[in-house]
Amino acid sequence: MANLKSLGEFGLIDRLSRKFKHQAENTILQIGDDCAVYSSSKNQLVSTDALVENIHFKVSAISPGQLGQKAIAVNLSDIAAMGGTPTRVLITLGISKKISTSFLDQLYKGIHKTCKLYGVELSGGDTVSSPESFFINITVIGESRKGKLFTRKGANKGDLIFTTGTLGDSSLGLKISSNKKCKCSSQSRKHLLDKHFNPTPRLKESRLLARSSLKITSMIDISDGLAQDLHHICKQSGTGAVIYEEKLPQSPAFSKVCIDNKLKHLPLILNGGEDYELLFTLPPDGVKKLYRQFEKAQALVTHIGEITQTLNKVSLVRKNGKRETLPRLSGFNHF
Amino acid sequence: MANLKSLGEFGLIDRLSRKFKHQAENTILQIGDDCAVYSSSKNQLVSTDALVENIHFKVSAISPGQLGQKAIAVNLSDIAAMGGTPTRVLITLGISKKISTSFLDQLYKGIHKTCKLYGVELSGGDTVSSPESFFINITVIGESRKGKLFTRKGANKGDLIFTTGTLGDSSLGLKISSNKKCKCSSQSRKHLLDKHFNPTPRLKESRLLARSSLKITSMIDISDGLAQDLHHICKQSGTGAVIYEEKLPQSPAFSKVCIDNKLKHLPLILNGGEDYELLFTLPPDGVKKLYRQFEKAQALVTHIGEITQTLNKVSLVRKNGKRETLPRLSGFNHF
Repeated sequence: MANLKSLGEFGLIDRLSRKFKHQAENTILQIGDDCAVYSSSKNQLVSTDALVENIHFKVSAISPGQLGQKAIAVNLSDIAAMGGTPTRVLITLGISKKISTSFLDQLYKGIHKTCKLYGVELSGGDTVSSPESFFINITVIGESRKGKLFTRKGANKGDLIFTTGTLGDSSLGLKISSNKKCKCSSQSRKHLLDKHFNPTPRLKESRLLARSSLKITSMIDISDGLAQDLHHICKQSGTGAVIYEEKLPQSPAFSKVCIDNKLKHLPLILNGGEDYELLFTLPPDGVKKLYRQFEKAQALVTHIGEITQTLNKVSLVRKNGKRETLPRLSGFNHF
Repeated sequence: MANLKSLGEFGLIDRLSRKFKHQAENTILQIGDDCAVYSSSKNQLVSTDALVENIHFKVSAISPGQLGQKAIAVNLSDIAAMGGTPTRVLITLGISKKISTSFLDQLYKGIHKTCKLYGVELSGGDTVSSPESFFINITVIGESRKGKLFTRKGANKGDLIFTTGTLGDSSLGLKISSNKKCKCSSQSRKHLLDKHFNPTPRLKESRLLARSSLKITSMIDISDGLAQDLHHICKQSGTGAVIYEEKLPQSPAFSKVCIDNKLKHLPLILNGGEDYELLFTLPPDGVKKLYRQFEKAQALVTHIGEITQTLNKVSLVRKNGKRETLPRLSGFNHF
């Protein structure tokens, strides 16, 4: 196994990028020059996200292949949140001393797998050394058809609130990953760990919404947690929202593990974060069509509440009928 | 002064991005959603670069304002290297515990200053915490007119090699920045430190070349050092090159400080790196026009050698007429 010192920066870049042969549409120049070059007549979407060792992940808890897959997936989720299709990524690696060539090979295997699955091209990157913590920064580029752009701003009073998939699985997965005493079947365990370590960006669902004639009035992906991300929609739209405890979608694995281990389900669902499901709003007259289309596509969608007039106030109606206000946090606070 | 904990991630993002009001052409959505959105009929250029504390800079040696300016400038230099115009940046900050709000305010003042100077828009970012070292990752997006793209590939035997500006100043600037015994006038010191801490991306010169009818056959920006970057052109073009010691452009400050302090000038010029000058090739029949255009624009350009047939071999002809082969390094090796 070649070590990093003998490979050098350029040798490492060659080694890691060698596999990335397939080209996105309209590529003029792939990697290997000062910039990558492409052209497109569609709207361009860009976003960037970093994952830092011991802040966002522990090398002891996630395999390098999973880390590579997840790093790409969470960035693709930002493109899904706008109704777009991802096309390109640029990847910066901050490599600390304990990181081996084999770790990087596995990481890139994961990156390559997810990029290939979604037809995403590697359009650049940087490899630098980092004194202590390994980090990975990804910039994702995507495109959307003109006139089909879903933003956080646009929800109106009376719109219904929907989420794809189920909520809380990812944070419960993280919780049980380091707890060997947890009572759960191997099947439940696998489901919950997969939702945390190998999330699926909801590109299929996003495309379904973008291609339909449904009047989606706002959309976001749930990365900070349902409560927080719903607050983002309300803030940008100048509205409030009410959601119902009994409507919040839970996977069978989630419900069973919460009950068997006496864990409170609500904090995980509301504030757990990293669900990477789509949260969106729609006027009531589109609901039938929405259900029909999601059923046809075998995709899960659930009505969880309504948009209200009260500026920035997000309420939860509990199963006993009581109404609670969900506070606006200042984000997943790393500092 | 608000501290980072009380600001939170979203408060910090609001605070830092508040100033960035001016919009690039064709912006559909600036920052504040899951992605920024824009459209353009021109070719799109993208590149990414990270600067890590104690690897690329020391917080004790560079002011936060200079760091912000430099981080943007070195990324804009990649766009200049392709003959493009920068339009957007996405900025990730990895914030370690010792970084204060005031440091970040100053950093963003520098970032904002350079972005404003070159008409570049802030189109996204991420702020994360980093356990030990501060880091900044920038993705730059630019555009070029169709048919006007300068790459590393395309140099032909007989083409002349040119560089803008002067070489070695930046690495000499770094060398003397921590050496108080250095014999140099305050004017020389200022010139050399400026070239290191506040480099100018050669966008004016790049635009001049892109708008002219000159047949530029290859171009790169000198970030790893003249020898290394000339090797990049040769490797991609399938050629060799010869350069002449006596032709290598030195600033008066550089020459004087090298002589007065008995420093060898060649290693600084050939391998120092971070010059951020443009290195390009041109068939001999374009030379007169090139000089005329650079003179008119009051920009410095120097003929330093020729492209040869010998694959991947870069030679230096010394002042005494002896010819030396310049080895291909494996890049500025951080590992």
